[in-house]
Amino acid sequence: MEGEPEDRRMIGALLRIPREAAIRQVMDGLARAGFGDLRPAHFTVFQHLPLQGLRLTALAEAALLTKQSMGYLVDDLEGLGYVDRAPDPTDRRAKMVRLTTRGRQVDDTVQGVIRQIEIDWAQRMGPDNFAQLVQQLRALIAILSE
Amino acid sequence: MEGEPEDRRMIGALLRIPREAAIRQVMDGLARAGFGDLRPAHFTVFQHLPLQGLRLTALAEAALLTKQSMGYLVDDLEGLGYVDRAPDPTDRRAKMVRLTTRGRQVDDTVQGVIRQIEIDWAQRMGPDNFAQLVQQLRALIAILSE
Repeated sequence: MEGEPEDRRMIGALLRIPREAAIRQVMDGLARAGFGDLRPAHFTVFQHLPLQGLRLTALAEAALLTKQSMGYLVDDLEGLGYVDRAPDPTDRRAKMVRLTTRGRQVDDTVQGVIRQIEIDWAQRMGPDNFAQLVQQLRALIAILSE
Repeated sequence: MEGEPEDRRMIGALLRIPREAAIRQVMDGLARAGFGDLRPAHFTVFQHLPLQGLRLTALAEAALLTKQSMGYLVDDLEGLGYVDRAPDPTDRRAKMVRLTTRGRQVDDTVQGVIRQIEIDWAQRMGPDNFAQLVQQLRALIAILSE
């Protein structure tokens, strides 16, 4: 589908291409901040992990991964010191995946890079165009969550 | 980051959330069309594979995956009959990953589902708002590829 002429790109590709560009910049920013051991696949975990933690099954479901694939990513991140597994306070038999202090530093770094991306895109598109893009994306998300 | 209030969502999440909704619909559409053996991770391969095929290394790079992770996905898809590996016409020692006939049927099905998503979103957002979203995404992509 990459091979298609630009003007035939559908909404899936239109959402995907800028997002991939943003992820590349985030990975560069993470590497510069000392988190060069992270891969884009790991980043998927951070994107779907709320501060209070989440069970592996829910995390896999949110990230559109099998429980097994998410398990590998979480094992990796646990080994690298970015997440740990703690008992779920609502069900002691279950485990929650949570960010460690180092994991929360990643979150902060990512937010800093994305803030820079927003500034950069707004400047290059023009602030009004960027604001319109943000507004329409928010409107779409509101409709999709109805 | 999922736990953040809606109005603090940054551009990364704003692009990701509608895209994940679209992927869920595409997976449902694929299952209904008889391609229920595909997972969202496999879908990543289709998104980055042009009709003329691509080398594994280039495919991994485009999809932001390691060569090893992409190798697993391609092995899976080869086993399921969606892709094959053929000699690269420009370098006989290298292999190209290509869609099989069944793989091209997936491409067609995905395009049909996305066309439906476009109709649905345009209806729910209002055609002018949807057109504005598409226009700003195209403008952003043009800027990013400069």
